[in-house]
Amino acid sequence: MTRHDGRANDQLRDIRITRNWLDHAEGSVLVEFGRTRVLCAASFTEGVPRWRKGSGEGWVTGEYAMLPRATNTRSDRESVRGKIGGRTHEISRLVGRSLRAVVDTKALGENTVVLDCDVLQADGGTRTAAITGAYVALADAIEWARREGAVKASAQPLKGSVAAISVGIVDGTPVLDLDYIEDSGADTDMNVVMTGDGRIIEVQGTAEAEPFDRAQLAQLLDLAGAGCAELTKLQQVALAGGAA
Amino acid sequence: MTRHDGRANDQLRDIRITRNWLDHAEGSVLVEFGRTRVLCAASFTEGVPRWRKGSGEGWVTGEYAMLPRATNTRSDRESVRGKIGGRTHEISRLVGRSLRAVVDTKALGENTVVLDCDVLQADGGTRTAAITGAYVALADAIEWARREGAVKASAQPLKGSVAAISVGIVDGTPVLDLDYIEDSGADTDMNVVMTGDGRIIEVQGTAEAEPFDRAQLAQLLDLAGAGCAELTKLQQVALAGGAA
Amino acid sequence: MTRHDGRANDQLRDIRITRNWLDHAEGSVLVEFGRTRVLCAASFTEGVPRWRKGSGEGWVTGEYAMLPRATNTRSDRESVRGKIGGRTHEISRLVGRSLRAVVDTKALGENTVVLDCDVLQADGGTRTAAITGAYVALADAIEWARREGAVKASAQPLKGSVAAISVGIVDGTPVLDLDYIEDSGADTDMNVVMTGDGRIIEVQGTAEAEPFDRAQLAQLLDLAGAGCAELTKLQQVALAGGAA
Amino acid sequence: MTRHDGRANDQLRDIRITRNWLDHAEGSVLVEFGRTRVLCAASFTEGVPRWRKGSGEGWVTGEYAMLPRATNTRSDRESVRGKIGGRTHEISRLVGRSLRAVVDTKALGENTVVLDCDVLQADGGTRTAAITGAYVALADAIEWARREGAVKASAQPLKGSVAAISVGIVDGTPVLDLDYIEDSGADTDMNVVMTGDGRIIEVQGTAEAEPFDRAQLAQLLDLAGAGCAELTKLQQVALAGGAA
Amino acid sequence: MTRHDGRANDQLRDIRITRNWLDHAEGSVLVEFGRTRVLCAASFTEGVPRWRKGSGEGWVTGEYAMLPRATNTRSDRESVRGKIGGRTHEISRLVGRSLRAVVDTKALGENTVVLDCDVLQADGGTRTAAITGAYVALADAIEWARREGAVKASAQPLKGSVAAISVGIVDGTPVLDLDYIEDSGADTDMNVVMTGDGRIIEVQGTAEAEPFDRAQLAQLLDLAGAGCAELTKLQQVALAGGAA
Amino acid sequence: MTRHDGRANDQLRDIRITRNWLDHAEGSVLVEFGRTRVLCAASFTEGVPRWRKGSGEGWVTGEYAMLPRATNTRSDRESVRGKIGGRTHEISRLVGRSLRAVVDTKALGENTVVLDCDVLQADGGTRTAAITGAYVALADAIEWARREGAVKASAQPLKGSVAAISVGIVDGTPVLDLDYIEDSGADTDMNVVMTGDGRIIEVQGTAEAEPFDRAQLAQLLDLAGAGCAELTKLQQVALAGGAA
Repeated sequence: MTRHDGRANDQLRDIRITRNWLDHAEGSVLVEFGRTRVLCAASFTEGVPRWRKGSGEGWVTGEYAMLPRATNTRSDRESVRGKIGGRTHEISRLVGRSLRAVVDTKALGENTVVLDCDVLQADGGTRTAAITGAYVALADAIEWARREGAVKASAQPLKGSVAAISVGIVDGTPVLDLDYIEDSGADTDMNVVMTGDGRIIEVQGTAEAEPFDRAQLAQLLDLAGAGCAELTKLQQVALAGGAA
Repeated sequence: MTRHDGRANDQLRDIRITRNWLDHAEGSVLVEFGRTRVLCAASFTEGVPRWRKGSGEGWVTGEYAMLPRATNTRSDRESVRGKIGGRTHEISRLVGRSLRAVVDTKALGENTVVLDCDVLQADGGTRTAAITGAYVALADAIEWARREGAVKASAQPLKGSVAAISVGIVDGTPVLDLDYIEDSGADTDMNVVMTGDGRIIEVQGTAEAEPFDRAQLAQLLDLAGAGCAELTKLQQVALAGGAA
Repeated sequence: MTRHDGRANDQLRDIRITRNWLDHAEGSVLVEFGRTRVLCAASFTEGVPRWRKGSGEGWVTGEYAMLPRATNTRSDRESVRGKIGGRTHEISRLVGRSLRAVVDTKALGENTVVLDCDVLQADGGTRTAAITGAYVALADAIEWARREGAVKASAQPLKGSVAAISVGIVDGTPVLDLDYIEDSGADTDMNVVMTGDGRIIEVQGTAEAEPFDRAQLAQLLDLAGAGCAELTKLQQVALAGGAA
Repeated sequence: MTRHDGRANDQLRDIRITRNWLDHAEGSVLVEFGRTRVLCAASFTEGVPRWRKGSGEGWVTGEYAMLPRATNTRSDRESVRGKIGGRTHEISRLVGRSLRAVVDTKALGENTVVLDCDVLQADGGTRTAAITGAYVALADAIEWARREGAVKASAQPLKGSVAAISVGIVDGTPVLDLDYIEDSGADTDMNVVMTGDGRIIEVQGTAEAEPFDRAQLAQLLDLAGAGCAELTKLQQVALAGGAA
Repeated sequence: MTRHDGRANDQLRDIRITRNWLDHAEGSVLVEFGRTRVLCAASFTEGVPRWRKGSGEGWVTGEYAMLPRATNTRSDRESVRGKIGGRTHEISRLVGRSLRAVVDTKALGENTVVLDCDVLQADGGTRTAAITGAYVALADAIEWARREGAVKASAQPLKGSVAAISVGIVDGTPVLDLDYIEDSGADTDMNVVMTGDGRIIEVQGTAEAEPFDRAQLAQLLDLAGAGCAELTKLQQVALAGGAA
Repeated sequence: MTRHDGRANDQLRDIRITRNWLDHAEGSVLVEFGRTRVLCAASFTEGVPRWRKGSGEGWVTGEYAMLPRATNTRSDRESVRGKIGGRTHEISRLVGRSLRAVVDTKALGENTVVLDCDVLQADGGTRTAAITGAYVALADAIEWARREGAVKASAQPLKGSVAAISVGIVDGTPVLDLDYIEDSGADTDMNVVMTGDGRIIEVQGTAEAEPFDRAQLAQLLDLAGAGCAELTKLQQVALAGGAA
């Protein structure tokens, strides 16, 4: 089988991570997985939500959204419709959980980081790009907080790194990093969120057409593991690229 | 390790499936996983949503909700707050996807089945109980439709059965069918939706505390596979128990 | 005239009051008026709404809702529509007012009891079943508070009991406790809420078809008085049935 | 006892009914019960709501609302809060039901009349003023429709007239047409909607403080009957006052 | 050219300013620009919104709305639709800004005045009538506060007066104070808010059909200046008419 | 006076217009006015809103929004709050009106163009950047429609071009194209929308602090006229830069 864009089955799309895309945010990244383009902004503020006050622990949360014309045909704005759709809710929660998995909230102190992931252009894999980019924005925001003294210089709020990738079974073949065309026709679609040291934070696999067995699941996880490892390196390169 | 309620690590809670709990619905089940109690109602109606009209195919969808005092402390009603929370959205979508995986929408014809899963009492595992009960309600509703002639007697809208169970790592040990206490303290929580013939429809695993590795994932999937097989038998027994 | 289900004109449907149907709530009742089935949960919490703070008085309120498939054809969820309908609002307010009429809010202290009345199955008379059941749940919750010391053992927050029943003119004849079929065809529909000692808390009569005169009103009130007296006895029997 | 404003117990406040207060509406009335001032606009349009199409019958509905500064202290706008409160819902439904009770929807044909009752100033009895005024606006709108040919000249869509009044027990004494001060301190508050020929369309009595007995109820209904008869005459005088 | 109602191009409609139209509000005005009729209520309350607390400065804000049958065909209520439309939002903000321009918020102290402008009948120019009337209601409310001691007798919270008028180019000719028919057919529509001493607070001009040039703009501003001067005199006459 | 960023009083910030920033939209522009960065997407679709069907005329509308971290401190998402704020509503309407002023809706045929203007980063002048960029996106979308045959090759749906700029009085001096710092401290703020041939489509001037006179207004309009002329040239250069 040949993928429609000529990639090998275990090949990522072109990944670009542009730090400091915004001037105001404490951390910001424009992340691109091929034509998928997500703007990740990390907002660091003192204080925590009411239910967490006095705990000595910080909070990290995510909000995901899509511009109306990110997609091939325009969607109505959720703000205009007056409510958020299930998919948006679901991905926002996933982003928050994924990032919290690598944060030591005690070391963060009673501070909050909100990760806004706005999809400027969608071509499959928007949630995995969002998580991968949000990690870099978060790292920059925490570095900012350390420089500003909002977090102690000795504190290590980041316990590790996090990246995410989609895998799926397309025309019977397991492939890595599906674009929109592949995703639409996939039998199975799985998103995997992993730490930089190769452990799993979240795995969400759905049989869109045909249920899958354990052997297929193993193949998908192998692909995802390799993909996340590669993304981890790209994150490290981006973060090594200079002060935020 | 001993589980706080004395169960073996691979032991389900007491499962009860009471069919025809409601008089009006085409199919209805009160399903109990220990103290978790979910009322599943299947509503069969002619016609499909607008975007599917003329396709010749039916539609199956789910709605999940929790009564305000299903939980230990009362929650505000989503109807009063004026919007549905992310968790509700997420589980409703999961219920719909899971049931659709075993439905041949062409054989269903242009008819719709809505599966309302209302949690009367929550003690962990509400989404897996909902899916497991909803399958039985769906089977009854389809049988009803066949008897009423709304679906051809020769049509087989059900391609198989579906059940779901939660697994998790509690105090370092993989266990089956977590109740609320176990769930609250789990390192990892995973929900697995499987067909009656043992294939996976959906797997959603989240590292609440510590990321997990492939070996742990395999252990969890083994537990889930056995649990779903057991639930499948209980569904068959329930459905063999007489006409709806 | 014979009623379609064979009852005498002044006969209630089979009434069942099952206490402690839920494990978490401070008081809970599954109340059945024939096929009408309402789950009443009383949630006792310390503190009162902001506008009542410092008054030394407690608060009792009600919320009524119907599951989507409680009725013969499925209704949309109010949470999904994003707003509560007028009928829901109206009955919630009636439940709260009715229960408050027998509560000494000073004796309750600055505590709140919320009465959630969720209709699991509807066959007419859901609001009267809700009020009748909610009283028992409230009594149990107050007893719980006394045992727990949240309310002084010497305090008497309950000044009396409350029950409710519907009456109506069907085919020209006044009848008691209308089911859905009777209610749909009634000329006049009236709900009466009474104390255990036979006084009126609330009377709401509506001429659905033909306006009614004072003589008819008197007949309806006679029926309602007898019906409420019977319900009061059933509540007493239920409450005498053992500790909550 | 002397009422605080010097009225006899069975005395209405000054009632004023000003027709054609608006230029656009098919019928409009500014109705005043003392300082209570309600603007009633009847909008006649061809066609009926979807669920009534093809029935050959018309529809009459009501919407009640209060300006933010109708009351002694300003209330937030329901449009700004984004939802309608329970009281507003309840009264809107009452207005619609009350007016429909005197309309022959077959004679109206497939036309709709919406009765907007906006309280410009509130001093107790706003719902009864709204119903009393809305009837006059409705009569003018139907007359307009007859003149315009939207309803056949021979058709009699109005089967009778409707008026409403509040009664209550204040300091132990039954009184008619309570203003805000009386209403706030009443033991029992009752609203009665009656036809011009003295039959009851709706009775809603609530024991705000002390439950009431059948004898008190009879006294209140006597007062209400006399009050509605008086209002009926004032409506007739207003309608006789010239073409709309 | 002759205007359809016979007015000269620089002629206002009949303007009526009726003070104290309401009994409860601290200031209230029924303002009429021909058939346009707006009820302006000024509510004076101690305290300011949270973001302004401790500033020593007061706050003035406006809310504009239209009754459903103010217009020729009935509009849905914004409260029923559950959200406020863009036009309503826009005019509410304009009313607030316009009035704040003549208020010395320091002299007002930490008090709030809300100006509710409810259009009872609309025939063009509702926002300009609202602002013109709201000024008079505001002046009365501030006078009330001074009498009541809520504002020091020596304080001068009002720095000047404010009035507003619409101008436009209709059939190529600049005219003053457009009614609905003129407004619907205007090439250009402009609203001008001015102080009593002839300076501009706000100018909002929109080319509905044909863009306009600087010369036309100058002509429109000349008309508006004369119109506002006339309105200022009428405001002074009204305010001189006796104590509020 | 020297401006804080060293610009002359009549000097624009650096303006960048990047066409085709998105792959899916029929026209798209990333427009930058200094640090203000707005993504404008033009979506061309066949058909018009219901109220315009059968008219033979097209429709052009705009939607403006800001990403939560476009600003210096994060704002809540309007989709999460469940309603759109007044400012968003106001600017969306302005964008739509401004673009419609240069569109011949008959030549457009029954097609709709939606202009989504999403502010990625805000530093003052977002609405003027949005309009200026949206025009270029609109021109590209119409060119696309012509190439695709959705609009006849001979049709000229664009009657002219449109650009917008802000002007204001800062520290007593009229200046062009205010950034956020200047805008916050301005006495007067005005937005002017003009056609490419120098006529005015919209003028919105607000005295934030001190009312302004006709002479000041004239100065501001001179500055705006020169600024819009410059922007018009930059639009022409951008559009000449190659096929979309």
